[in-house]
Amino acid sequence: MTGTDSDLVVLKLGGSVITDKDSPETVDDEALHRVLDAVASTSKSEDGRLVVVHGGGSFGHVHAADHGVSTTTGTSDAAAATAIHGAMKRLNGVVVDRLQERGVAALPVHPLSVAARDAEGVLSLPAGATEGLLEEGFVPVLHGDVIAHANEGVTVLSGDEIVTSLADSLGASRVGLCSTVPGVLDEHDAVIEEVRSFEDVASVLGDSESTDVSGGMAGKVQELLDLGAPAHIFGPDAVGDFLTGERAGTLVDGR
Amino acid sequence: MTGTDSDLVVLKLGGSVITDKDSPETVDDEALHRVLDAVASTSKSEDGRLVVVHGGGSFGHVHAADHGVSTTTGTSDAAAATAIHGAMKRLNGVVVDRLQERGVAALPVHPLSVAARDAEGVLSLPAGATEGLLEEGFVPVLHGDVIAHANEGVTVLSGDEIVTSLADSLGASRVGLCSTVPGVLDEHDAVIEEVRSFEDVASVLGDSESTDVSGGMAGKVQELLDLGAPAHIFGPDAVGDFLTGERAGTLVDGR
Repeated sequence: MTGTDSDLVVLKLGGSVITDKDSPETVDDEALHRVLDAVASTSKSEDGRLVVVHGGGSFGHVHAADHGVSTTTGTSDAAAATAIHGAMKRLNGVVVDRLQERGVAALPVHPLSVAARDAEGVLSLPAGATEGLLEEGFVPVLHGDVIAHANEGVTVLSGDEIVTSLADSLGASRVGLCSTVPGVLDEHDAVIEEVRSFEDVASVLGDSESTDVSGGMAGKVQELLDLGAPAHIFGPDAVGDFLTGERAGTLVDGR
Repeated sequence: MTGTDSDLVVLKLGGSVITDKDSPETVDDEALHRVLDAVASTSKSEDGRLVVVHGGGSFGHVHAADHGVSTTTGTSDAAAATAIHGAMKRLNGVVVDRLQERGVAALPVHPLSVAARDAEGVLSLPAGATEGLLEEGFVPVLHGDVIAHANEGVTVLSGDEIVTSLADSLGASRVGLCSTVPGVLDEHDAVIEEVRSFEDVASVLGDSESTDVSGGMAGKVQELLDLGAPAHIFGPDAVGDFLTGERAGTLVDGR
């Protein structure tokens, strides 16, 4: 985190980065330790405020797929909702615990408790609790989840949706998406330095390859272009660079 | 639950009712089964909407006392906050699981994720997620917790505070507080049928006897008198009566 006290950074840790997506409810310990070490070493030495959001990986997505639940198709079965929500809470507990072990004042924020969608699928995510925790020096840690969705029961809320919502409502100064790839790649698999409009990259962005109820790179880039803040997409090695304000991966800035 | 589809009942299960207050993190299995059986048998046969709120008992209060945290004195120690919050989540998990086992579509709502206090201690608890779950046929289950509190870190949010906040913001038609006593008792330990103003009972209300960071009967009655809905204070045997609209314990109604 860089700059003034009021700077707010939103860091998303991709579910594919911190879990083994091929094995149900399995943390990728080495990757998680690496990215959390980077978070801890920067967040303790800088003045800015940090929100962490993580995806589902092999915790949330497997259960969501099992129950046929997506961001638009829901379930009214409380047990199915609990299977997805409970798995995400277990992953969140690991992330929060390991941040606390590193001296970061992390506390959990569970979207099912605070967010909902209306009948048009429009998300409402009041940020007062998250903001209150930030103001008190805590690092709120949110996660992909299920949330109430009018006429659908509960549907999936992706980590990426949380990032864009919070970046907007809290006025983030920078947004970072830590992905399994080192940035948005061109046709030669080289990292594209900057994306200023979707036309810049439309020819090279394919769909996400693994099972992912929350969309691939094309959707991420489109959402980040609509943010009111500069965003970076980068790999696990670049978390520290991003948090200290260095160039990391691909800058996506549609402002 | 009685009457029309739009009727909303808020039921608070006292922490002293569902836990053994003398033994850390111990559920009172017999009492919990009894009250949840009553909830299940009425909530499945009626059309109204139900919110359950439970207190901390030997889960939350012990940790809150250990760390010197109350509704007005906070902590900025993430580990202390997690000790209290984690204990309350464990109790909440038990309540939610056992309701689901009985066929009630219970889902957890954790106040730390949604509520905060300002520097004057005024509570903000946006009810959109809880309302969304209700509209989709779920039974939200909230609990006493710690929440962000401006200039204090996190402080305790009592179950009673949640009840009054939600009853107001959701427009509850009836509120019930299941306590260890069968109602507000007079000087001969007989249940007072109705309380219409605090003066009615000022002479007989003492302080709560056990360690309770969230206040005793006097505070409960005062808060319930300020509600815009009739409230009942009753013992574990009367949960079913309350939910089916029968007279239960003491009616507190200051309207």
